Amino acid sequence: MRVYNFAAGPAALPEEVLKRAAAELVEYGSDGMSVMEMSHRSKMYLAIYEKVDASIRRVMNIPDNYKVLYLQGGATLQFSAIPMNLMKPDKNSADYALSGNFSKKAYKEAKKYGDARVAGSTEDCGFARIPQQNELTLNPDAAYFHYCMNNTVYGSKWNYVPETGDVPLVCDMSSCILSEPIDVSKFGVIYAGAQKNMGPSGLTVVIVRKDLLTGSMPFTPTVMDWKTLAEKDSMYNTPSCYGIYFLGLVLDWIESIGGLEAMKKRNEEKAKLLYDALDKSSFYKTFVEPSARSMMNVTFNTGDNDLDAKFVKEAAARGIVNIKGYRDLGGMRASIYNAVTLEAVKALVDFMSDFEKENA
Amino acid sequence: MRVYNFAAGPAALPEEVLKRAAAELVEYGSDGMSVMEMSHRSKMYLAIYEKVDASIRRVMNIPDNYKVLYLQGGATLQFSAIPMNLMKPDKNSADYALSGNFSKKAYKEAKKYGDARVAGSTEDCGFARIPQQNELTLNPDAAYFHYCMNNTVYGSKWNYVPETGDVPLVCDMSSCILSEPIDVSKFGVIYAGAQKNMGPSGLTVVIVRKDLLTGSMPFTPTVMDWKTLAEKDSMYNTPSCYGIYFLGLVLDWIESIGGLEAMKKRNEEKAKLLYDALDKSSFYKTFVEPSARSMMNVTFNTGDNDLDAKFVKEAAARGIVNIKGYRDLGGMRASIYNAVTLEAVKALVDFMSDFEKENA
Repeated sequence: MRVYNFAAGPAALPEEVLKRAAAELVEYGSDGMSVMEMSHRSKMYLAIYEKVDASIRRVMNIPDNYKVLYLQGGATLQFSAIPMNLMKPDKNSADYALSGNFSKKAYKEAKKYGDARVAGSTEDCGFARIPQQNELTLNPDAAYFHYCMNNTVYGSKWNYVPETGDVPLVCDMSSCILSEPIDVSKFGVIYAGAQKNMGPSGLTVVIVRKDLLTGSMPFTPTVMDWKTLAEKDSMYNTPSCYGIYFLGLVLDWIESIGGLEAMKKRNEEKAKLLYDALDKSSFYKTFVEPSARSMMNVTFNTGDNDLDAKFVKEAAARGIVNIKGYRDLGGMRASIYNAVTLEAVKALVDFMSDFEKENA
Repeated sequence: MRVYNFAAGPAALPEEVLKRAAAELVEYGSDGMSVMEMSHRSKMYLAIYEKVDASIRRVMNIPDNYKVLYLQGGATLQFSAIPMNLMKPDKNSADYALSGNFSKKAYKEAKKYGDARVAGSTEDCGFARIPQQNELTLNPDAAYFHYCMNNTVYGSKWNYVPETGDVPLVCDMSSCILSEPIDVSKFGVIYAGAQKNMGPSGLTVVIVRKDLLTGSMPFTPTVMDWKTLAEKDSMYNTPSCYGIYFLGLVLDWIESIGGLEAMKKRNEEKAKLLYDALDKSSFYKTFVEPSARSMMNVTFNTGDNDLDAKFVKEAAARGIVNIKGYRDLGGMRASIYNAVTLEAVKALVDFMSDFEKENA
């Protein structure tokens, strides 16, 4: 029996998608082989690749002046690729907003390559909120402005898109991509690891505005040079072929339920159910300032470490798993990505209510 | 119906393995979720990881003073990682032997990071043979000596391990790893993309002698720093979890048929069948000098481009697919990796005989 999986990533995938993947695994259509066995340069695989690329462009409404790259190495490898590709000898400063764990890692990595500056941070309050526009100290000559839209660890989200004038926005959307419609045209670069809303780990999607494909620093590994990768349709070397195929299955599933508008409604309903339960309880405490709440990662605790541990343990006995908070924060975290069902959130809310009655 | 797939990579996988993967895809054991949905830091996933690590160490007989890293980005990303990790300020020269397409790419990439030298090359004869020991001009102060054991494009193989004294051997085994036993202790670093003998693309295995884990150049992306990756058991960031799991299935399959000694016998039998057919024919020509023949990639042609194209087309009609040679070389290439069955090679040899009768 499948459990209710609230893991932060790799995370729950739609059961329908898993079943389709299983059915197609040994032999794909009438091609006589598994997708895993297809040469990435074969006509049969290129047909899959082109279908996936068209799907993501349609689902996310990606304008023609953007290229979608399908890469490896996780968002973390892009923490380096971003400065390597966007910092230039005459423009080697970049602005970083710190709103959580991964934005901080991205900033630290960028410092290896140029003048990465902190343009805003909420670290002083433990990342319990998001820097506001008027708190940002922007450098108009920055090569780019980087932020992480949804903070997986803390359960916070930038509920506005920062205004940076002519400075391109570079946004890590790993834990919120495909959860709701976004206006791609506001961004210079959007990137995301697949392992939350797009499929299994091992695939990284980078959506880059074509005018930013101007080459990279001399020591950039060729498979990190976006311009080369764009020219080669992400096939300078062998990509994660199965990961790309699987993303296609996930996109088919999103379209089957009505696209990103419908996905947003589902996600709002799930998040509301959970946050309402937390807000009406005096037993459970939330971590993040309400205006900065994430729709994908919900962090809470009882204020008592032992009780939190008991919660996690007893939840698991009811088939509610991977609900332990990240080590830096403690408490609980329910990641309610696209594939987590309303039924799963209801089961969690029911358990929370029972646990409160027994332990309050 | 499954075809006979002679693709060079991604390539045929064992049907038994694909069937097991399909059966386990939606729900793994009694864990209530797919392997693709498991947090890489969960106990259930770590149990898989540890089993795979123990399997590869057992199957390849890897000594304790080596660490196995499970990475992303393909062998191509390692073309950069190798100099970044092994060239040092006081030892920034490295010897490269050029014996084909990928060794040349590795050499070109290394030149970005230090003094990469050509220590031997057979490019003047179109890579139809392998540099011999007495042709190598070795630098005793080199940080390492790099070669590619099996040349996928040309169908040649180093049928000896070069002697380089104290200079560590770094070997790209992408297209021959797990095809036969090797003495790991002779090497400083062994690396390979998974998509020939280890599973789907998206996983790269790096086997590195622990004394070589001494840190990397200052601009090295953290996910390319072997020392950090070794300390974090390849989980500095989220690895290709499903790829690692799949490698485990492949290793189980190898052990089920008797390990690498048995695998070598199977591969020798297949290669002999094909090379004997080529040698006894005056219609088909082989490209590589006999002493340098690969057991994994067999290149041949009719000497007539139009006839080669006809061969490829008619073979496909008989369910023999992906047999076209690489663009640089033309002709035909049959990649007969571990998962390609003797039955498939027999079907190819039968077709070759029929084709020769009709077209000679």
